[in-house]
Amino acid sequence: MYQINLSVRDYECDLQGIVNNAVYMNYLEHARHEFLLENKVDFAELAEKGIDLVVVQSTLKYKKPLKPHDKFYVTVALEQEGRVKINFIQNIYLMDGTLMLTATTMGVASKKGRPIKPPAEMLALAATL
Amino acid sequence: MYQINLSVRDYECDLQGIVNNAVYMNYLEHARHEFLLENKVDFAELAEKGIDLVVVQSTLKYKKPLKPHDKFYVTVALEQEGRVKINFIQNIYLMDGTLMLTATTMGVASKKGRPIKPPAEMLALAATL
Amino acid sequence: MYQINLSVRDYECDLQGIVNNAVYMNYLEHARHEFLLENKVDFAELAEKGIDLVVVQSTLKYKKPLKPHDKFYVTVALEQEGRVKINFIQNIYLMDGTLMLTATTMGVASKKGRPIKPPAEMLALAATL
Amino acid sequence: MYQINLSVRDYECDLQGIVNNAVYMNYLEHARHEFLLENKVDFAELAEKGIDLVVVQSTLKYKKPLKPHDKFYVTVALEQEGRVKINFIQNIYLMDGTLMLTATTMGVASKKGRPIKPPAEMLALAATL
Repeated sequence: MYQINLSVRDYECDLQGIVNNAVYMNYLEHARHEFLLENKVDFAELAEKGIDLVVVQSTLKYKKPLKPHDKFYVTVALEQEGRVKINFIQNIYLMDGTLMLTATTMGVASKKGRPIKPPAEMLALAATL
Repeated sequence: MYQINLSVRDYECDLQGIVNNAVYMNYLEHARHEFLLENKVDFAELAEKGIDLVVVQSTLKYKKPLKPHDKFYVTVALEQEGRVKINFIQNIYLMDGTLMLTATTMGVASKKGRPIKPPAEMLALAATL
Repeated sequence: MYQINLSVRDYECDLQGIVNNAVYMNYLEHARHEFLLENKVDFAELAEKGIDLVVVQSTLKYKKPLKPHDKFYVTVALEQEGRVKINFIQNIYLMDGTLMLTATTMGVASKKGRPIKPPAEMLALAATL
Repeated sequence: MYQINLSVRDYECDLQGIVNNAVYMNYLEHARHEFLLENKVDFAELAEKGIDLVVVQSTLKYKKPLKPHDKFYVTVALEQEGRVKINFIQNIYLMDGTLMLTATTMGVASKKGRPIKPPAEMLALAATL
């Protein structure tokens, strides 16, 4: 499964001394983009063909808080839901395997504002699960 | 219902020319904190009594994207779920009433790491719904 | 002098319990953009004519730290420096007038990558000082 | 000289398609903290002794903009200025050595709100320049 290694930066932590809840969405987005980039799904190219990929729903379950100096990794897997939806299934783990967060990000492909079947290169990634 | 008026700042927008998905969590958190502050729920005071309030789950449904210069408002309502959970129900609307996002943030009160019944002042806010 | 009123949001504060140093640049940029917008300096329109406005230098002097719940205002004034430079002179004050930060942001107008005289509408703003 | 390797994350870019000016301060702070951590200058420990280290001035000179997918490194060097000031001298370079930004961050050590001589472990780092 795809994974990217990151570490907590002090400015990502808030008054409570832990990573702010919103920053996890930064980590998750960054991991998705790196995953797609590595798999040659090119947003710019799709956009030129008039195909947009938009996030319609995000669900994050916070298990344990990330703290300053923590080193962690973010996983990415894809699954198709129905005809037009793609779910990115992601987890964040400490390097020792402790689960910190689980997340599902639902995306939809659209052309001229109407939902369409996701591009073949994305479905191919989902199929490999 | 409680609401707070905000406007999009250019630095909150990303490459796609719209507000970045993670920034909505900033808006939602800010609205929750202002709401609680206005209702005299004092995190610092609760923390001194050993009571922590932690977010355990966030769900965001993106309806339409906020864009540069948009003026909008964020609503906050509270509901109790079961014995120990509190849900913050929040929406984001353009000033003309267009719904942009709906969100549910589930929090749990805990003392020495064990879930406890939420503080009376929070339950009082839920009761007013 | 132009000023914009803002208040500290909790997520802008870091581990030290004060507004993170980088966040002041967000405040300053937001105030500059609102100032220019209000004075009909339209970046998009200038860009269509091939005129770019870029920041080449920022200097921030931190006097006192902003803290959670602080209400403050940011001022903006413009001065021309030499033939091609524009300086934005900005201060941040608490509502009671306490000076928190002073900043100078130097911008240059350019066309096809070469510095040019800033657009007349910007120079007009500088002239009013 | 100390250096840390980073890469641009899409969410750090703004409407103009380049890294937002404020984000460079995040990169610089992160590099400084990693540098100090690696050299055993422990902020938490100093704070317990009542010694605070605060930034009093930042100057950033923007040479060329960082763009999506850019890989870059941030350098850190220290110099003492006068009796109580420490300057962090930092540059950001693309991996091919292209200079993107130069920055000076001036810090002061203080005890009970009065400036003091910086801690010996910081001066030792400055002495090695």
